[in-house]
Amino acid sequence: MAERGLGVLLVILDGLGDSGSAELGGKTPLESVEQRNLGRFKEAGAVGLIDPISPGIPPGSDTSHLSLFGYDISAEYPGRGPFEAAGNGIELREGEIAFRANFATVELRGGRADVVDRRAGRIPTEATARLAKVLNEECGQVGDARFRLYPALEHRAVLVISGTGLSHQVTDNDPHATGMPLLECLPLEEASDKEGAGRLCRLVNSWERECIKVLERAEENADRKRRGLLPGNAVLLRSPGVMRAMQPFSERWGFKAACVAGGKLYKGIAKMLGMDVVEVPGATGMPDTDIGGKVRASLKLLGDHDFVYLHLKGTDVCSHKGDARGKAEFLRRFDDSLDEVDSDFLSSNVLAVTGDHSTPCGRAMHSGEPVPLLVAGKHVRSDNVRTFSELSATGGNIGRIRGRDLMPLLLDAAKRTVELGTRPTPRRLNFIPRDLVPLDLGP
Amino acid sequence: MAERGLGVLLVILDGLGDSGSAELGGKTPLESVEQRNLGRFKEAGAVGLIDPISPGIPPGSDTSHLSLFGYDISAEYPGRGPFEAAGNGIELREGEIAFRANFATVELRGGRADVVDRRAGRIPTEATARLAKVLNEECGQVGDARFRLYPALEHRAVLVISGTGLSHQVTDNDPHATGMPLLECLPLEEASDKEGAGRLCRLVNSWERECIKVLERAEENADRKRRGLLPGNAVLLRSPGVMRAMQPFSERWGFKAACVAGGKLYKGIAKMLGMDVVEVPGATGMPDTDIGGKVRASLKLLGDHDFVYLHLKGTDVCSHKGDARGKAEFLRRFDDSLDEVDSDFLSSNVLAVTGDHSTPCGRAMHSGEPVPLLVAGKHVRSDNVRTFSELSATGGNIGRIRGRDLMPLLLDAAKRTVELGTRPTPRRLNFIPRDLVPLDLGP
Repeated sequence: MAERGLGVLLVILDGLGDSGSAELGGKTPLESVEQRNLGRFKEAGAVGLIDPISPGIPPGSDTSHLSLFGYDISAEYPGRGPFEAAGNGIELREGEIAFRANFATVELRGGRADVVDRRAGRIPTEATARLAKVLNEECGQVGDARFRLYPALEHRAVLVISGTGLSHQVTDNDPHATGMPLLECLPLEEASDKEGAGRLCRLVNSWERECIKVLERAEENADRKRRGLLPGNAVLLRSPGVMRAMQPFSERWGFKAACVAGGKLYKGIAKMLGMDVVEVPGATGMPDTDIGGKVRASLKLLGDHDFVYLHLKGTDVCSHKGDARGKAEFLRRFDDSLDEVDSDFLSSNVLAVTGDHSTPCGRAMHSGEPVPLLVAGKHVRSDNVRTFSELSATGGNIGRIRGRDLMPLLLDAAKRTVELGTRPTPRRLNFIPRDLVPLDLGP
Repeated sequence: MAERGLGVLLVILDGLGDSGSAELGGKTPLESVEQRNLGRFKEAGAVGLIDPISPGIPPGSDTSHLSLFGYDISAEYPGRGPFEAAGNGIELREGEIAFRANFATVELRGGRADVVDRRAGRIPTEATARLAKVLNEECGQVGDARFRLYPALEHRAVLVISGTGLSHQVTDNDPHATGMPLLECLPLEEASDKEGAGRLCRLVNSWERECIKVLERAEENADRKRRGLLPGNAVLLRSPGVMRAMQPFSERWGFKAACVAGGKLYKGIAKMLGMDVVEVPGATGMPDTDIGGKVRASLKLLGDHDFVYLHLKGTDVCSHKGDARGKAEFLRRFDDSLDEVDSDFLSSNVLAVTGDHSTPCGRAMHSGEPVPLLVAGKHVRSDNVRTFSELSATGGNIGRIRGRDLMPLLLDAAKRTVELGTRPTPRRLNFIPRDLVPLDLGP
């Protein structure tokens, strides 16, 4: 057999891409950092830009990650719900529908429910659990479909619907703004209300009406009102998805893969793709996370895995707050943490650093602009670009690629490919397959 | 609901892309211009290159525009005929076939008609109208299909065929050269002559034979011959298309859109996509057009529209004449006209400037080379490129995109997107949907 190739450490700095910012002297957070270690790896590699989906499309974190992991969003994306469920440790069965849910405060008038607070005054986790329990007991069944609400952090929950012949191609009932009415869940496919999306809408709308009645008289809410707190008297639903087995990452790319992440969604994505998800103490999914600890854990995992996905959320958290200085500081700490990665690392591994999307601090939300990519490795054609940034990457040797090009590029940098056409493989792409069987010559 | 986002002014300079020209000291027309105003907008934005379709494909003006407006030519393009018809104010019904037509002069010999002049000596509009009237009276019906010729400017006309089960997948009978015979219209699909393309060919070829007989004895032509003028004694047909409703631009992208253009084809494209087409005095579709008037009209339209498509044809007209100096002068006048666009414009709008294709003056026809793109706006990641040209755009942050990427990119620059995956929408892409219904809670 051919050699197995190099290992890969893929660092995804959430929301990395940015624009120049006045408080950083016109530089982007990444540009403003000294890059003591990133510069060292830049010397040994090349840079470029990635459009996670395609130019101008701002992805959510799930669609961007799936695309970077080499999945085709237009054909394979089952909606966000199942990833949220997996991140919360909820195991779904094939065909079950999952929504992200919020307990919210609505004001009932004239036969409609106007949203007063989308988070019911950030109702605490325990109260959410008690309200979910009441709803599961009193509204757990609509026709022959089962509705189950799983409480998550604070006002958040996941709604799982089990029934036959349901489609997740429906709109949110969450208006995504206060002062707007709770919406009807509408089908996005043509269908009668007997099947598919039409049937799911009929069930969801009935369930919601029932929930509002039950929550109106719930003891928990009466108690909150007595204490001058906003009641959780409606459930806002968004981001529906259907549980569908996805081809495991290891099967698609031939890597034994592990994930180091703090945030639940990222762990959920990794689980859905069959990666080993490792808990690292101090990994919070926030700017205060133990970056060094996560880097050390990743390096250790490369002992018995050949692909490690390290996710850092701090960059995106700062971006959503419009905090360019905080983002730059987080990136400086990340650069420092690469002290852990010694110069011998590249003799048997590839280091790739990128983002899942751009979240410019000036915009404080995801944009459709590309993210910079750095790939360092002994088989990478290094370019003449000196630094790693959104603007310098324009001139890099990697050029401008799409999210789905990343995995083939990393496989190639890790010398794990075979020439297309020269060897048939049972997989989607051209890596060296693991599971070959000797010809049995008999006794 | 979320804020509606910024307005967009998209300026399409027809045939903008060019190569260096000796008479401009080796510069392209765009490079040779001072860019007093374009430079100002470049400061506030980024540049890149667009392949209207894909690298190396020279588009016609209709396919390039449709692609830039985000339509998939391979799946949605109904052929050119219907756009020409719409541009001439002809309303087609679903399924009707339209050809571009020319009255031409042919010499009949040995049972064939050799083309002597493809424009019948640029026969005037009134004569074309009289000949069309004769043909509509005498050859208006072939079997159960109706043939109707609508006169347009000078020798030009549009032929509309109404019948059942017709396909537009047929060849031109126009040989596109003098000294060549008028051709048989041939099917491009396999079909019997009872249906589809085969049937259309049988009908068109019968009609053409009849027309030639009728035109041979037409009084108008006898009169022209007496005056030493070339007769319009045949009808050359080209660019067939079938009328098919296209998804309105507003529905696809969520914009209320208007068009400012002089040329009929561009107005036709805008009408077919449901844009408001505004007549501007002095807009001629030629180099002498009132550029300032068109810019002022566009700015005014942004008061009650959120997308304005401004088309300027002068660049392409100069290119087709090989007139690089004239093209540069037209671009200088365009840059001057941007004096009308004050610096406050970008606080609530995005300005994009590009071409629909390259028409290098040295080649005097469309080429398959990319066109430069400038996008200026407060949410655009600005790059370090100083000028706006075919060559400088290579180093811009927008990179090299395809025509169909432009609308997502503009939506993103106008902050009108939602993250892919986080909110289901009934449309093709991820903009904020308009038509939501409050959940009815009953009495």
